[in-house]
Amino acid sequence: MMKKKDCIFCDDEQIKATMIFEDAQCKVILDKFPTDKGHMLVISNEHYDNMLEAPDTAVTHMYKIAKRYGKLAMMKLKSDGMTITTNIGRSAGQIVMHFHIHIIPRYDQKDPSYDFGSHREISKEQRDNLLNMFKE
Amino acid sequence: MMKKKDCIFCDDEQIKATMIFEDAQCKVILDKFPTDKGHMLVISNEHYDNMLEAPDTAVTHMYKIAKRYGKLAMMKLKSDGMTITTNIGRSAGQIVMHFHIHIIPRYDQKDPSYDFGSHREISKEQRDNLLNMFKE
Repeated sequence: MMKKKDCIFCDDEQIKATMIFEDAQCKVILDKFPTDKGHMLVISNEHYDNMLEAPDTAVTHMYKIAKRYGKLAMMKLKSDGMTITTNIGRSAGQIVMHFHIHIIPRYDQKDPSYDFGSHREISKEQRDNLLNMFKE
Repeated sequence: MMKKKDCIFCDDEQIKATMIFEDAQCKVILDKFPTDKGHMLVISNEHYDNMLEAPDTAVTHMYKIAKRYGKLAMMKLKSDGMTITTNIGRSAGQIVMHFHIHIIPRYDQKDPSYDFGSHREISKEQRDNLLNMFKE
């Protein structure tokens, strides 16, 4: 397993508190700084700097998982839409240089408790509610 | 082949002027209203309203193609980054209700000729330059 030192998405200890799903290739975690309610990330187990650096097998598997959790989020959170996106490079807004796919539920009516700018951390209560909803 | 009446992405005549690539499952076309230079779309040949409605086989194939053209765009356009995204539903900004993946090159220095808001159409010259660059 290829891991990178000082990469927060390579550090299993750091992410296990918000982990929803794990298999041999990837994990699904809650974004600690959600853009909207239910914002999740699919992250690769191996370290790749971004989607273009990952092998096709990882890319295709992770998008299947993104689709599965996107559908689950539509149902469980009754969201009206969804953005499924990956950023490659700082000019595209990538912050953690480890391949991850954002799953961002969208709502016609935004939940006020999530109506904050970026860089505000999810509360423990919000986190635990979502973990209970999505953990299998 | 499942097509939908009055869907512009089901209308092969409308999109062939900006088509870069085609295979049994999908096409790559230039976005007529590019967010930035080299903005392309991977669109499914069959009609699915969005990514969550498409079968896994179409999803995984189309993301492989998105990765291929994302890498090509990084090389040929010397972009600094890339956004690879799909919108599901109007609340996420989806305009054409036919599954498509955006490939949007990002630049530290934006090309001034592409520095316009949305809803301005690509010029014929810009289109032909890009078609020459990407068509195989």
